[in-house]
Amino acid sequence: MRALQHPDVEDLSLPAVLSALADPVRLRIVAELARSGGIVCGQFDVPVSMSTLSHHLKVLREAGVLRVTPQGSYRTHELRIADMERRFPGVLDSITRAIAVA
Amino acid sequence: MRALQHPDVEDLSLPAVLSALADPVRLRIVAELARSGGIVCGQFDVPVSMSTLSHHLKVLREAGVLRVTPQGSYRTHELRIADMERRFPGVLDSITRAIAVA
Repeated sequence: MRALQHPDVEDLSLPAVLSALADPVRLRIVAELARSGGIVCGQFDVPVSMSTLSHHLKVLREAGVLRVTPQGSYRTHELRIADMERRFPGVLDSITRAIAVA
Repeated sequence: MRALQHPDVEDLSLPAVLSALADPVRLRIVAELARSGGIVCGQFDVPVSMSTLSHHLKVLREAGVLRVTPQGSYRTHELRIADMERRFPGVLDSITRAIAVA
């Protein structure tokens, strides 16, 4: 398996993060991750195919919103809450809380 | 002059707001508005043509991020801070503060 790229915290871009979050399915993924901590790929409750889900997870990973960790034949997905908070204080947290009422 | 459309606060969509903000020039416009209160169109300090600026202002208006008020032959632009805060608490505020360090 190819190593998965994650941007360094210093390289996180606000437009890229907002662009990654500007999608209803990706917001739902983020809300689930915020509720649960780490999630294995197949466990997301979103109404899309596995290949579409993989695409959305890649967009979020490449923007630095989440970290993907291979564990055997699975991948665990976690929000990069500390990195996002350090770089853009309050942004991911307020968006996560806004999803519930959006 | 045709009446300018502004979405009602109940109709604001989080993905649409994030999509409107996911652009470096539009973030710069928002930062200027946050600093200044109301701004007349020609006064924005952004490195784009007037027609491109008009496009960016339209995207932000249609997403509900700002309100445009015709005043004679000018248009005044203001952030809809209260509406955004009511609908998505903390989102516009944290993004506005993050722009300075982005």
